[in-house]
Amino acid sequence: MNYRRLGRSGLQVSELSIGSWVTYGNQVDRSVARESLAAARDAGVNFFDNAEVYAGGQSEVIMGQALKDLGWPRISYVVSTKFYWGLNQAPNQYHTLNRKYLLNAIDGSLQRLQLDYVDLVFCHRPDPATPVEETVWAMSDMIARGKALYWGTSEWSADEIRAAWEIAERHHLHKPVMEQPQYNLFHRRRVEQEYRRLYEDIGLGLTTWSPLASGLLTGKYRSGVPQGSRAQLQGYDWLRNELTNADKNEIVGKLAGIADALGCTVGQLAIAWILKNPNVSTVITGASNVEQIAQNMKAQEVADKITPDVKAQIELVVGDADD
Amino acid sequence: MNYRRLGRSGLQVSELSIGSWVTYGNQVDRSVARESLAAARDAGVNFFDNAEVYAGGQSEVIMGQALKDLGWPRISYVVSTKFYWGLNQAPNQYHTLNRKYLLNAIDGSLQRLQLDYVDLVFCHRPDPATPVEETVWAMSDMIARGKALYWGTSEWSADEIRAAWEIAERHHLHKPVMEQPQYNLFHRRRVEQEYRRLYEDIGLGLTTWSPLASGLLTGKYRSGVPQGSRAQLQGYDWLRNELTNADKNEIVGKLAGIADALGCTVGQLAIAWILKNPNVSTVITGASNVEQIAQNMKAQEVADKITPDVKAQIELVVGDADD
Amino acid sequence: MNYRRLGRSGLQVSELSIGSWVTYGNQVDRSVARESLAAARDAGVNFFDNAEVYAGGQSEVIMGQALKDLGWPRISYVVSTKFYWGLNQAPNQYHTLNRKYLLNAIDGSLQRLQLDYVDLVFCHRPDPATPVEETVWAMSDMIARGKALYWGTSEWSADEIRAAWEIAERHHLHKPVMEQPQYNLFHRRRVEQEYRRLYEDIGLGLTTWSPLASGLLTGKYRSGVPQGSRAQLQGYDWLRNELTNADKNEIVGKLAGIADALGCTVGQLAIAWILKNPNVSTVITGASNVEQIAQNMKAQEVADKITPDVKAQIELVVGDADD
Amino acid sequence: MNYRRLGRSGLQVSELSIGSWVTYGNQVDRSVARESLAAARDAGVNFFDNAEVYAGGQSEVIMGQALKDLGWPRISYVVSTKFYWGLNQAPNQYHTLNRKYLLNAIDGSLQRLQLDYVDLVFCHRPDPATPVEETVWAMSDMIARGKALYWGTSEWSADEIRAAWEIAERHHLHKPVMEQPQYNLFHRRRVEQEYRRLYEDIGLGLTTWSPLASGLLTGKYRSGVPQGSRAQLQGYDWLRNELTNADKNEIVGKLAGIADALGCTVGQLAIAWILKNPNVSTVITGASNVEQIAQNMKAQEVADKITPDVKAQIELVVGDADD
Repeated sequence: MNYRRLGRSGLQVSELSIGSWVTYGNQVDRSVARESLAAARDAGVNFFDNAEVYAGGQSEVIMGQALKDLGWPRISYVVSTKFYWGLNQAPNQYHTLNRKYLLNAIDGSLQRLQLDYVDLVFCHRPDPATPVEETVWAMSDMIARGKALYWGTSEWSADEIRAAWEIAERHHLHKPVMEQPQYNLFHRRRVEQEYRRLYEDIGLGLTTWSPLASGLLTGKYRSGVPQGSRAQLQGYDWLRNELTNADKNEIVGKLAGIADALGCTVGQLAIAWILKNPNVSTVITGASNVEQIAQNMKAQEVADKITPDVKAQIELVVGDADD
Repeated sequence: MNYRRLGRSGLQVSELSIGSWVTYGNQVDRSVARESLAAARDAGVNFFDNAEVYAGGQSEVIMGQALKDLGWPRISYVVSTKFYWGLNQAPNQYHTLNRKYLLNAIDGSLQRLQLDYVDLVFCHRPDPATPVEETVWAMSDMIARGKALYWGTSEWSADEIRAAWEIAERHHLHKPVMEQPQYNLFHRRRVEQEYRRLYEDIGLGLTTWSPLASGLLTGKYRSGVPQGSRAQLQGYDWLRNELTNADKNEIVGKLAGIADALGCTVGQLAIAWILKNPNVSTVITGASNVEQIAQNMKAQEVADKITPDVKAQIELVVGDADD
Repeated sequence: MNYRRLGRSGLQVSELSIGSWVTYGNQVDRSVARESLAAARDAGVNFFDNAEVYAGGQSEVIMGQALKDLGWPRISYVVSTKFYWGLNQAPNQYHTLNRKYLLNAIDGSLQRLQLDYVDLVFCHRPDPATPVEETVWAMSDMIARGKALYWGTSEWSADEIRAAWEIAERHHLHKPVMEQPQYNLFHRRRVEQEYRRLYEDIGLGLTTWSPLASGLLTGKYRSGVPQGSRAQLQGYDWLRNELTNADKNEIVGKLAGIADALGCTVGQLAIAWILKNPNVSTVITGASNVEQIAQNMKAQEVADKITPDVKAQIELVVGDADD
Repeated sequence: MNYRRLGRSGLQVSELSIGSWVTYGNQVDRSVARESLAAARDAGVNFFDNAEVYAGGQSEVIMGQALKDLGWPRISYVVSTKFYWGLNQAPNQYHTLNRKYLLNAIDGSLQRLQLDYVDLVFCHRPDPATPVEETVWAMSDMIARGKALYWGTSEWSADEIRAAWEIAERHHLHKPVMEQPQYNLFHRRRVEQEYRRLYEDIGLGLTTWSPLASGLLTGKYRSGVPQGSRAQLQGYDWLRNELTNADKNEIVGKLAGIADALGCTVGQLAIAWILKNPNVSTVITGASNVEQIAQNMKAQEVADKITPDVKAQIELVVGDADD
């Protein structure tokens, strides 16, 4: 496994990492979670991504229990959580980044995870109803109190990220270090255009999510929605339209051709393509089971085969299909 | 219930809230307090106002016990306290905002309230004998130590509030977020004139007190002081003159006419009129009993009926009767 | 008792206060200490001065035990300690204001005093071998950690005090609030000349020591060294020459004449004269026994009799006898 | 023993001190460690140097146990540790100065040393893969949390040290106070040339290591590698070439002549020469046994004999043999 710095920070994260979104708490039980984490670690993964909202807090409970069962030294892995949605649809408890919610949320997450601190804590979305300064103070206070080591954002605009960084610089608070954007062959603009100056100006690191565009880039939706797939889960109806889009599935078909030529799956190709972006610190991948992890990890070898020519070829196929 | 941001902060407070002044510890026993809080919460109220000095600390004791009995999640409600008068008439214990008093007072309040922290803590009055810088440091330290989430002032001049904000900005301390001024149809100048620039410049929020001008705006003093009213309580003699002022009671009579036309009481009209001011974050109302709460809550619906025309009509009746 | 602000701070101190130098641990046993503190408090004294070095730490032990026995609420009194000499003549343990010594010393003092915090903590002398910045950080850290409320200096030059204040202002640390200088009719230059600008520029408060010039101003040395006086104690040989100085005792004789005319002792006159200086926050007086306290407290009434004319008369007698 | 300020800080360190590198955990057992520390202290040594990496953490364990057995007051000695290499060759655990590693490492060291805090904590080497700002924050946070009193660097470039100092000044964090460079007659450039401006500009102190150039300057390698010497230990093969260098051993021979004339060993001469550099705060010497300590301590007396003429003579012999 290769390790990369999380942006300009000194933290080393494996270039492929594991996310618990959807997976834990919904489809995966405890023993599968434990086995998946163990398999990922055997492959060199050191970063495990989480959020308060995933499965209503149950993702954290399952990952926390698995980590406890596995008994690895705390220094050897990196765990994250994220705050914004909250667990109850009531004022100050959801869709917020205010001080009251954030300081309450971190205590809840640490309890569910059975940890003294998380390594990374994210503002899961921007909150236009809370001043950036209030949020920066609360995130910085989490770090000052030893409840987290680094903080960052997820799906914030470049302007919002820079505002947070500048406020922290001015008031001598802990600065945001990383952003967690969606990034894949069908969703490129923010990472490649909007954030462009931030990599150099503030040393922003990226922990990207949805490398397979919710599964679209696995090719499994080319002939409709298969049984047991995520697009059939309750509460994920919004995905179905996106995943069965004809134009995109046609592109996936062409990518499958390129993948065949390289001797890999289209999913591996899609992940490997992300790895070629030096501004990406780590690609968060799914972890429904040990086999899926094994398949995803092979993307590292595929990345070695993505020459500048192959990369150009891939991007030509995708064209301007950015959503 | 509508919720509003506390000024420019991210905290959401119900636009109608409950204060324990006079009520708890004096006239209301524990079970009534518990029932009143429960009724208010059922109506959507999430902010409960308090102060060290109310009933010599007994307000905090009763509210703390009621909150404990009710067992609501801590994240779901907002509690305040205020410091300035202290509990003993001795140096450093009353009429002060010095560091020694403030850091001692917060520990006492948290103990009486049986809480780990209050959401809001106010400097109950300005103290010309303590530098604003000393007070700002002590209030900010309360927040840094996790004993409060936001701090503000009560009945400070615009100049004093701005001084506190600027000192906090310069020294990178937690800034004041809100002010608790008296505000009602007979007391408008400070909120509408003096603080005018602060709403935009520093994002000041308001938690207003005495919406009914100590009861004058209920109309119940139009024919003298009724039995059992607050104006008959010991230690509140000063209120009696104010409440029986003939000119003002005449105005209340005219307001009652407008209220009749809208199908509400004059008290509901008075509260609803405050709700039309967008700089007000929440109107603190009394809570002697469940029925009073129910009556006050109806002011929300009345507010919908206060068109610009009705508002102009109300303000014409009041004229320059500001005290 | 009158109370004065400690300089521009919000802390109120009684204009006459009690110091444990020499007294406690040397000449006074526990029950006498307890009675003396009680008598002082009955007279309105709220400030009790201490230092690590007094009687090798025993002053703090005796005062701590007396305070515990007396059981007053912690908010009601102000206790100080001072650091510089240390308890052992070894590197980093004496004649220093370095971080290691200071952070170690405060814990020792709080243990001896049986207190959670002192109100005032002083740097007992300047230390040219430690940067002012290092000392300012350590003193500010004591306050940030809740082990003291205010910090100051003792016998620092005006330049050193201003340097400490400016460093704290620049680095947003807790600023020095007060200085404890020797001040009496025979030792005036520093308070009246050297510090002159500091009262207005930084709001410096003064807790003055040696109001009677080690007893010289009681007049009891006018005919030699009396039995049992401090000048006979072991380790205080240096005092003897000073106290038996003929010129000064002649001045004391003339002051006694003025005192007679006012119906007070020369010691009361000397203390009362200090009280007329508005830059003095409190005059620390001795407390060997209850009678001595009673005598010193009368200086307050004498102060009312020191008209501008009497003050000029006193200062004419003293002339330029400043040591 | 003479004591010197650690650079411009107020901390006093003995000009000769004891390091546990190689010695403890490898060649020295517990009782020898205890006796060696006791002998050093009897000679006036108050600084004992350590590092996480020495003997894989066992140096700290042995020194911690010895200190506990000896029972000296904590104020009376100065203990250090250093972080960079870590105890496991895995990401975020070695060759790093990132926040995760540093905050984890200090807790491990304190546990092994059985101490509440170390006096000095060093960044054992620069880490180009972590921003200086991240490292400065983590080191400053260790001090703010009371786990260390002063922090510094080891083998950082002048530019890196100044960068750390300036970042701390700008963000109001605890500044680096000292550097631990190699310094001896064969390794002079960094201390004498590169750091030249830092002594005055930021008051840098030096705790120098390898005064005898790993034993080369004892003269014992003049006729090959003796049995049982450090150059024969496993894992120290790299030393052998250096120590048997013919040119250097010839210089050592000439230095032995000067030493003979002064009536001391060449090792004592080499240490004494370092003591003549006023920018050196303390020379860290080895401590394999009581006899070695006794021999090294005599360098103090030798230093008195190194007149400007003798110093010039020594430096003429060495010439430009700087490695």
